[in-house]
Amino acid sequence: MFTSRVLESLVESLCCLPGVGQKSAQRMAFHLLQRNRKGGLKLAEVLKQAMTKIGNCKECRTLTEKEVCHICLNIKRQENGQLCVVESFSDITAIEATGQFSGRYFVLMGHLSPLDGIGPNDIGLDLFESHLYKGNITEVILATNPTVEGEATAYYIAELCYAHKVLASRIAHGVPIGGELELVDGMTLSHSLLGRKKM
Amino acid sequence: MFTSRVLESLVESLCCLPGVGQKSAQRMAFHLLQRNRKGGLKLAEVLKQAMTKIGNCKECRTLTEKEVCHICLNIKRQENGQLCVVESFSDITAIEATGQFSGRYFVLMGHLSPLDGIGPNDIGLDLFESHLYKGNITEVILATNPTVEGEATAYYIAELCYAHKVLASRIAHGVPIGGELELVDGMTLSHSLLGRKKM
Ligand SMILES: [Zn+2]
Ligand SMILES: [Zn+2]
Repeated sequence: MFTSRVLESLVESLCCLPGVGQKSAQRMAFHLLQRNRKGGLKLAEVLKQAMTKIGNCKECRTLTEKEVCHICLNIKRQENGQLCVVESFSDITAIEATGQFSGRYFVLMGHLSPLDGIGPNDIGLDLFESHLYKGNITEVILATNPTVEGEATAYYIAELCYAHKVLASRIAHGVPIGGELELVDGMTLSHSLLGRKKM
Repeated sequence: MFTSRVLESLVESLCCLPGVGQKSAQRMAFHLLQRNRKGGLKLAEVLKQAMTKIGNCKECRTLTEKEVCHICLNIKRQENGQLCVVESFSDITAIEATGQFSGRYFVLMGHLSPLDGIGPNDIGLDLFESHLYKGNITEVILATNPTVEGEATAYYIAELCYAHKVLASRIAHGVPIGGELELVDGMTLSHSLLGRKKM
């Protein structure tokens, strides 16, 4: 189909990106080869670095190339005492962009899903509980997605919190039910953080 | 904004892909880091190879990692005597997919555009004319885009052909006027190849 084997592999590899099918992969490959080889080389280099150097923060599980991320290391955020629990990395980016939160985060990298065999330890709740033990958390803000699984996960974690006598709150349902947190606009997300209710 | 510098560079670099904005770049980066690091590493490797190893065929200017592409080297396609002139690499892929053409190609990598300072030699017409001199081309099929610039380029090349006493034909206007060749479905493209008219 293509006049080059390498081009064929490139199109195939680009298809591993979410939302990219055969047609868009072709356009991307041709665009880079015809107009932006420098950008393509840069992307190759950064991609390799990212895949090999980025790990998870051992405190909050977010993506970082350090052992502990800069949010967890921030003394002011530690003193704030609030811990915001989210399902995925991108939720941190969305919440940080609102400027409404100055505590720390905890990333579940998913949600409880007994049918798929995903239990508490698979979403890092053993590490989460170890934070509760330390006693320097004043409030856990549950910012899991407003989906059935997200709600169930929030309730499960709220119970954990109460077992450790730590206040748990849920972000307000200003966010549309059934949606994904990272797709919500900043204003709505700000409101839902400010309007959170005790669980 | 991100918890990792490398992640920030990755998102920035992904934005150099056509059709990829900040939001999609984030989704791509998170997806690869969270679910498909192996695919990400493979993409990095293939991308580097493609950017450094793929050049242009010295006969037809299409993308290839060899000196001359496999289409130009194909004896049957040489004997066919037809030469199909297209604006971009992706047009070859689209025409090959129809299975209606068994000659060779010539890629302009653009079209004539005097206002932008793009003249005949900028779209390889010096190399093209050297093919006409050789005398083994029986027909030049002009498959430039059905746009104003594409039409003007086709007419310019047709005159070159007649100066060399080589038949020039234009693919039929089954393809929608104002569109781009690579976006046309295979059936329409087949029809337009079969219904080509002498210029
Ligand atoms: Zn951290
Ligand atoms: Zn060639």
